[in-house]
Amino acid sequence: MPKQTESGTTLADIGEKELINRLKVFMPIGQTEDDTAQIASEGKHLLINTDVLVEGIHFSEKTTSPNDVGWKAITSNISDLASSGVEQIIGVTVGLIAPPKTTWDWIENVYKGMNSALNQFGGNLLGGDCSVGHQRLLAVTAIGTLGTLRLHRSHALPGDQLIVSGPHGLSRLGLALLLSENQTELDQLSSQIKAEAIRIHQRPNPPLKALKTLESCKPKELPWRAGGTDSSDGLLEAVNSLCSSSNCQAVLDLNQLPRRKQWPSGQNFDEWCLNGGEDYELVLSLPSKWARALLQALPSSQKIGFMRNGPPHPVWKDGTKIKKPKTTFEHF
Amino acid sequence: MPKQTESGTTLADIGEKELINRLKVFMPIGQTEDDTAQIASEGKHLLINTDVLVEGIHFSEKTTSPNDVGWKAITSNISDLASSGVEQIIGVTVGLIAPPKTTWDWIENVYKGMNSALNQFGGNLLGGDCSVGHQRLLAVTAIGTLGTLRLHRSHALPGDQLIVSGPHGLSRLGLALLLSENQTELDQLSSQIKAEAIRIHQRPNPPLKALKTLESCKPKELPWRAGGTDSSDGLLEAVNSLCSSSNCQAVLDLNQLPRRKQWPSGQNFDEWCLNGGEDYELVLSLPSKWARALLQALPSSQKIGFMRNGPPHPVWKDGTKIKKPKTTFEHF
Repeated sequence: MPKQTESGTTLADIGEKELINRLKVFMPIGQTEDDTAQIASEGKHLLINTDVLVEGIHFSEKTTSPNDVGWKAITSNISDLASSGVEQIIGVTVGLIAPPKTTWDWIENVYKGMNSALNQFGGNLLGGDCSVGHQRLLAVTAIGTLGTLRLHRSHALPGDQLIVSGPHGLSRLGLALLLSENQTELDQLSSQIKAEAIRIHQRPNPPLKALKTLESCKPKELPWRAGGTDSSDGLLEAVNSLCSSSNCQAVLDLNQLPRRKQWPSGQNFDEWCLNGGEDYELVLSLPSKWARALLQALPSSQKIGFMRNGPPHPVWKDGTKIKKPKTTFEHF
Repeated sequence: MPKQTESGTTLADIGEKELINRLKVFMPIGQTEDDTAQIASEGKHLLINTDVLVEGIHFSEKTTSPNDVGWKAITSNISDLASSGVEQIIGVTVGLIAPPKTTWDWIENVYKGMNSALNQFGGNLLGGDCSVGHQRLLAVTAIGTLGTLRLHRSHALPGDQLIVSGPHGLSRLGLALLLSENQTELDQLSSQIKAEAIRIHQRPNPPLKALKTLESCKPKELPWRAGGTDSSDGLLEAVNSLCSSSNCQAVLDLNQLPRRKQWPSGQNFDEWCLNGGEDYELVLSLPSKWARALLQALPSSQKIGFMRNGPPHPVWKDGTKIKKPKTTFEHF
């Protein structure tokens, strides 16, 4: 049996059964005795989503505490449910893989982070499975009920306005600060924007309130039709996916990028706004009247462009195709 | 970019987007354009379960073809749902991790294996996520509707009979044959039993029919109460979990081990029957009248013992505690 490390008891020390036993405290109403958990659907349609978070790809010791790993595992999933129109989060199941040398401290803090996010945004830890493996990773499946508005990437239409629920690029700025990238450029930033960027990178919020506002501000005469997705893989990628799924062309204006107030100018900062990723905002394609209502009802929202007939990709308003970033979220 | 290997195109060659695109063929009605999938619950309670399958722990190139990896990923999950009382499988989501050098051939055959199992036992591939990682693994979440009988490990009672839905040990025998273990001992076996053992190891069936029979043979005057689990982690482990969850003592008889007909005698073979694992049979704690009805209605079922008051672990009929096996399913 491996020795205890300084940082505490390892999984090799406690064994699989004791691990499962210790994790039960995080599952007050879920799967505690049986392999499966039971959920009441109350006749509603359900939304289900699975996300994987792999160490070295989606998180690292350097930038993400175990508590934040847990938080992000939950909120990235909930963001996907929000971008499809979730009403209430029911819960999540978690597949956990970790090498035997992983400390119980690390695991416990990941689950504490998951619990904090579930307490804030709704839902319970329903159950899961765990196994030894070469690399720490989480596979989280979230399930929730569908509300009034089923958002689809494929439901954008020519003539729609493109609206985002908030500014973009802060999460990528937070990562740059944590990794001490571009230091000369970043030194000029206010401590307020730096702190906000790091907080947003480490503890993102899924756009549940934005979804509620979107639903509540729909002009009565309009049908429940809107195109939508979230910007977890970057704003441009989100717009691109709306274009290809809906077979429309998105027209964006560089002057209308969804920058935060006091967002610095410069190519790097524009690039992070467009392609930084992990923004977890809604990217919506809405009829003009609904778009105007949302811009009024949700102060953080911004208009970034519009949809028209044309080859299904984003272009600048002069018609030039918006280039793909050099670094993308292609993990293979 | 890594070169193509002899065995075909790799994930590094095709990239993440193209991978997701290619996997869409396996999702005829699930998550194709959006990150989430929608399911109709029709007002029924749902059962949800997550299992992880890690290369080197749960499967290996040596004993499991990619097609069988996919099959087992689905059937082990469905077995868990069956042991909780599932009525109909709705579907699964799949988190897939694989190193960039993994061939598309391997991935495609895993998904073909999953599809074969879903075609046979019900349900659709609803969606999922994929990422690069150090090791091939699958995290599968299965969801289904709950039928009439909610089986729980904690619902066994003193006075119950212990019934299994079929013989045990064949899967472990199949593994031994594939790994050329105990060759002298195994050479004596008939080719029929060898073929059956390998088939059961590579293509296990979840106990859905046994569950249906159990439900249909319940004597009318009895309530819908039964203790139950599956024996995926071994028969003794299943009985042990019934004992600890229900706070009863299980009394087993070595002469009543659920051996297949013509199962060879000897300590190894008894050990495989008790602790081989991956048997995917129901292990049930039933009132005597229901137990008798099941033994009659389900020809493969066998009585293995009974439950009584006492320290919550399995004992032989002379009262000696049944020793834990040397090799267990403790993966850490």
